[in-house]
Amino acid sequence: MAQTADELAKACAAALWQTDQASQSMGMQLDAVSPGKACVSMLVTDVMVNGHGTCHGGVIFTLADSAFAFACNSYNQRTVAQHCSVTFLTPAYLGDRLVAEATERQRQGRSGIYDIVVRTEKDMTIAEFRGHCRTVKGTLLPPEDVASEATEEDC
Amino acid sequence: MAQTADELAKACAAALWQTDQASQSMGMQLDAVSPGKACVSMLVTDVMVNGHGTCHGGVIFTLADSAFAFACNSYNQRTVAQHCSVTFLTPAYLGDRLVAEATERQRQGRSGIYDIVVRTEKDMTIAEFRGHCRTVKGTLLPPEDVASEATEEDC
Amino acid sequence: MAQTADELAKACAAALWQTDQASQSMGMQLDAVSPGKACVSMLVTDVMVNGHGTCHGGVIFTLADSAFAFACNSYNQRTVAQHCSVTFLTPAYLGDRLVAEATERQRQGRSGIYDIVVRTEKDMTIAEFRGHCRTVKGTLLPPEDVASEATEEDC
Amino acid sequence: MAQTADELAKACAAALWQTDQASQSMGMQLDAVSPGKACVSMLVTDVMVNGHGTCHGGVIFTLADSAFAFACNSYNQRTVAQHCSVTFLTPAYLGDRLVAEATERQRQGRSGIYDIVVRTEKDMTIAEFRGHCRTVKGTLLPPEDVASEATEEDC
Repeated sequence: MAQTADELAKACAAALWQTDQASQSMGMQLDAVSPGKACVSMLVTDVMVNGHGTCHGGVIFTLADSAFAFACNSYNQRTVAQHCSVTFLTPAYLGDRLVAEATERQRQGRSGIYDIVVRTEKDMTIAEFRGHCRTVKGTLLPPEDVASEATEEDC
Repeated sequence: MAQTADELAKACAAALWQTDQASQSMGMQLDAVSPGKACVSMLVTDVMVNGHGTCHGGVIFTLADSAFAFACNSYNQRTVAQHCSVTFLTPAYLGDRLVAEATERQRQGRSGIYDIVVRTEKDMTIAEFRGHCRTVKGTLLPPEDVASEATEEDC
Repeated sequence: MAQTADELAKACAAALWQTDQASQSMGMQLDAVSPGKACVSMLVTDVMVNGHGTCHGGVIFTLADSAFAFACNSYNQRTVAQHCSVTFLTPAYLGDRLVAEATERQRQGRSGIYDIVVRTEKDMTIAEFRGHCRTVKGTLLPPEDVASEATEEDC
Repeated sequence: MAQTADELAKACAAALWQTDQASQSMGMQLDAVSPGKACVSMLVTDVMVNGHGTCHGGVIFTLADSAFAFACNSYNQRTVAQHCSVTFLTPAYLGDRLVAEATERQRQGRSGIYDIVVRTEKDMTIAEFRGHCRTVKGTLLPPEDVASEATEEDC
């Protein structure tokens, strides 16, 4: 049972991950989750390369979007992306391992803003992503899995 | 040999498509291409579903981004995405066939702006995408495949 | 009394305009309004020039944002901007008369997306703006000023 | 003569400010500048209020855009905004003193990304702004006003 905000974040991510066929099938790895934060990594494989011979921008976006989802769903309130923007700074290539790091910038009422940076393991910044989300009805965990302390907002 | 602007657009798309492992492996279909325009469709399969049970936002973005790429590369100048934003309006689901339609909004010097709408076959709008691109060095076709008329700018 | 959707749009704009000190003090002119559309123009004066000797980007944004406001408030539901993005294509200069034309792209439930183009009178495109809005509580007109037909949604 | 990166930033801002009629006429105050950073504040006056009785979104954007300009022009390379997006979180009102704080997120080659937060003096966040800029030809200061050390890139 999730007792702290950090345990709650990890339990939410685990619940979300279990049915996240998209992130799993792309070989993503959920490296870290805490309240409002998430780190997801992925290897660029041959099916991710576009007609220019670089990693498809959609693949980079998808990695960032997954990190965003784990970060903004870390409070056990079902939360969905509403508007996202991405700036592509440097191409990524076949064989690169990409790391997407999501941090919370704003969270007010039902809305949130998260910044996600996608880097190579050599710390080259590939893309800057900003995501806007909104909570919808429902929780990620069944009530019996959440201790009342964990749901208390401390921010 | 590409003789007209329309033939050139189709030849560029064919060249780009041939090595576009990402779009191909996701089962995309290039339905139409003309100068500054492209239409790409795709079926939402089980590996595209996220932890909320809906089509992953990154998958929707990737479809739109591919349509954007075929549209902005239709002039035989290698062109890459620089900044994109997407608004998710309605969730898409497993089994939906999504259609992304890209149209050119601006094209000045090396920069372009394209609007891409992603709809279901039943005409429900799933997402609105706006892409900013920039030409880089190089062409998509070898010089011998392009008639001089086709490259004449008429806009 | 506003009898048609078009009369309603014009009555809403008139109500909004009356207290819109910002648009008025900048010398904006409301050229046209209809349901989901608006056209606003303005002369670039010396107090609008920035340190580069061109029209301040904020001034161009403000003109577009005003056109956006009149377009999205044309249904007599108080509506506010939530997220806007602008791409600056060409500088505008002192003495240019700028025209911002807003058109509705999407309107679903409480959300809307509007595209606003800012051009000079010589049809040079200065900026492309996309605005996302959301209805809030309240109307722009008192109930007695609105015929029931005018409020019927026909879209 | 500007000897250090910090002195250079301040000298660039002073040069830009001198002819920035827009920022001056709106009563902005340049509170702080350093390499890649700037802080600008402004009082919301009656000519800044829109038809909803709140501070016009364009005014909030303009304040953020000015802070952005001083931050991205702090290296004595003339730099202009290319694409900006803003999210309005809470309305600002007549009499509020708004503070825009710009920080550099990325700077690679000719491109830069800056994040600007607009807050009230009571630390309520009014808007989140992200600006993309590009250097153009020219400097802000005449060569004789810049010591060679100050122009050495240390990032």
